[in-house]
Amino acid sequence: MQLQVPTKALAEALSLADRIVPSRSSNPSLTQIRLEAVGSPAEVLRLSGTNLELDLRAAVAAEVKATGACVVPAQILNQVVSRVAADQVTLSASAKELTLTAGKAATRLAVGDESAFVPLDFGEAAELTVDAGELRRSLTCVKYAAAVEEFRAVFRGIQFELHGDSARVVASDGFRLAYRDFALHSAAQRKVIVPARSVEEFLRVLRDGAAGLTLEAGSLTLHAGAVVMRARLMEGDFPDYARVIPKEMVVGMVVDARTLENSVARVAVLAERNSSRVDLVLANGVLRLAAEGDYGRSTDELEVEALGKQREYTVAFNARYLSEAVRVMEGAVQVEFSGQSGQAAPAVFKPAEDPRHLAVIVPLRMS
Amino acid sequence: MQLQVPTKALAEALSLADRIVPSRSSNPSLTQIRLEAVGSPAEVLRLSGTNLELDLRAAVAAEVKATGACVVPAQILNQVVSRVAADQVTLSASAKELTLTAGKAATRLAVGDESAFVPLDFGEAAELTVDAGELRRSLTCVKYAAAVEEFRAVFRGIQFELHGDSARVVASDGFRLAYRDFALHSAAQRKVIVPARSVEEFLRVLRDGAAGLTLEAGSLTLHAGAVVMRARLMEGDFPDYARVIPKEMVVGMVVDARTLENSVARVAVLAERNSSRVDLVLANGVLRLAAEGDYGRSTDELEVEALGKQREYTVAFNARYLSEAVRVMEGAVQVEFSGQSGQAAPAVFKPAEDPRHLAVIVPLRMS
Repeated sequence: MQLQVPTKALAEALSLADRIVPSRSSNPSLTQIRLEAVGSPAEVLRLSGTNLELDLRAAVAAEVKATGACVVPAQILNQVVSRVAADQVTLSASAKELTLTAGKAATRLAVGDESAFVPLDFGEAAELTVDAGELRRSLTCVKYAAAVEEFRAVFRGIQFELHGDSARVVASDGFRLAYRDFALHSAAQRKVIVPARSVEEFLRVLRDGAAGLTLEAGSLTLHAGAVVMRARLMEGDFPDYARVIPKEMVVGMVVDARTLENSVARVAVLAERNSSRVDLVLANGVLRLAAEGDYGRSTDELEVEALGKQREYTVAFNARYLSEAVRVMEGAVQVEFSGQSGQAAPAVFKPAEDPRHLAVIVPLRMS
Repeated sequence: MQLQVPTKALAEALSLADRIVPSRSSNPSLTQIRLEAVGSPAEVLRLSGTNLELDLRAAVAAEVKATGACVVPAQILNQVVSRVAADQVTLSASAKELTLTAGKAATRLAVGDESAFVPLDFGEAAELTVDAGELRRSLTCVKYAAAVEEFRAVFRGIQFELHGDSARVVASDGFRLAYRDFALHSAAQRKVIVPARSVEEFLRVLRDGAAGLTLEAGSLTLHAGAVVMRARLMEGDFPDYARVIPKEMVVGMVVDARTLENSVARVAVLAERNSSRVDLVLANGVLRLAAEGDYGRSTDELEVEALGKQREYTVAFNARYLSEAVRVMEGAVQVEFSGQSGQAAPAVFKPAEDPRHLAVIVPLRMS
């Protein structure tokens, strides 16, 4: 292979690959990416790599003088290209090495064994079309609620639900839940679970315009511009989350998302480290927040718009859960409390400006 | 004590204190800062704390209603104040607690035992006056050369030398050396060693204008604006570094600092991890750089202005040492090689625009 490619576009694709492809592995071929110079229909350099959970393919427009392919360590190539000063990079591969030249700088990388490289298949075209901005917004709104470490593996995933004329993404760690709906037309109705870590990478490539999705037996493939990402699906069933969403509001409030987020952050400094507990008391259009720990006690008061019956309602939350839920919301948020005051029934958070988005938090038990 | 203080100024002083005062210690009173409301000559809130290596005192203009003092955990108070939304904060202390109020938010912190707090003495006025910008520039130019971990403790320090009409700061880890001179009039001629970690904190408060220095038996005190920092001096003797600075240049070059830094960074990606070795060959006005490791080989070529006898000179450096030495230099740098080609004699780096600054690197042995 031999080709010339703009440094910036190559660096962007490599930086994406470097995030996904592991830098160390007991299987050294997993640390490599495959470069392929393609001559038609368009002259492009294709990069592909995987961490076995997520496969990546990126295309960069290039001036291809000779087609061909080779595999080289992803991290090293990324480091080399990110330091290139020239606008253009020339790549040429022999059976033994890949030579990268830019101005007077030259780098020769030993090429790996192409036959040992995991074969990657991305399909040709996307099955479903989706607004990339809507998908990005939806995933951003829910990914915080997925578990980082959890005994139930599905809690580390985000469920994609196809409902015919709409779709939903939903995440939960058992203590909180978030979902958001978006427009997507699909023939089949299906639910699949994608690892939250792969969704993080989806978010890096979702810009505006249209994106494509393909749902197959064991994978969900995202087509976003010149990038294709294929995520392995997770096994197991997502819990029946509709059960935990309270149907009826006993008392509620409307409060600005930023105001609530900042107040929780202020008060939570004094919260007991383990529980991160913040107490909320809603009464007569005033929300009082308080937290107490080894160092002392913090309180704050917010004027809110009261909803429902005007009686005092007391509830306690993990401050981090409260902060993360409202952080992805903008403007007025309707907070709906259920059950009896002090009984720790789930609370619902609905941003007024985004009715497709909903979050639920299970409060802390007030002993 | 009772006072009102602008949030921003208090937050800046607390963030400085939080960097110095440890967040955990077997002696809990070390994690605290002392707050003192002073009524005259000016109304200020004084904050003081220490890590036993560096003492800090900062003053913030305040509206003092009642003088007094208390000690509270530095980290917690910093976290509380950094999240305050209001412009002004009111502090009032009783025997048991410090109450901080800002708008409707209130925080009560249990106060510590003032009698257990390490007594801190900062003296009244500075003995020597120095241009703060010059001192900052000088320390920035040399601190990279101090050792992070080293068997000789003095290598983790920066030597301040008072020579009567001028002063010098110098750092070395035994493999490289940097010094910079600056104007300072002192009656005595002295050399003292300040821990590099304390110098890092000096750098955070050195703005433009004048700064003060006081040299006492076991400490060097910096007065910078409303901040006073007193650094414990290190025991031991700094090595006689003048010995290692070559007197005579055999061959040399003039090269742009950024150009050399970037070229080294490019080539070094391929260098062997442990040695980080980059080979330099200077011949006929061309500097060739090369590095080689497990993944392959990188080369680069720079046109330079040749100095001295025109013959080929070969030398190898640790890439990090080379990068760090030229990173703090701007514009043209004169590099002077000594000894025979390939004999690993120390190299001298002199920025043309800053004749007060000099760096020396001991090359790697070329086996």
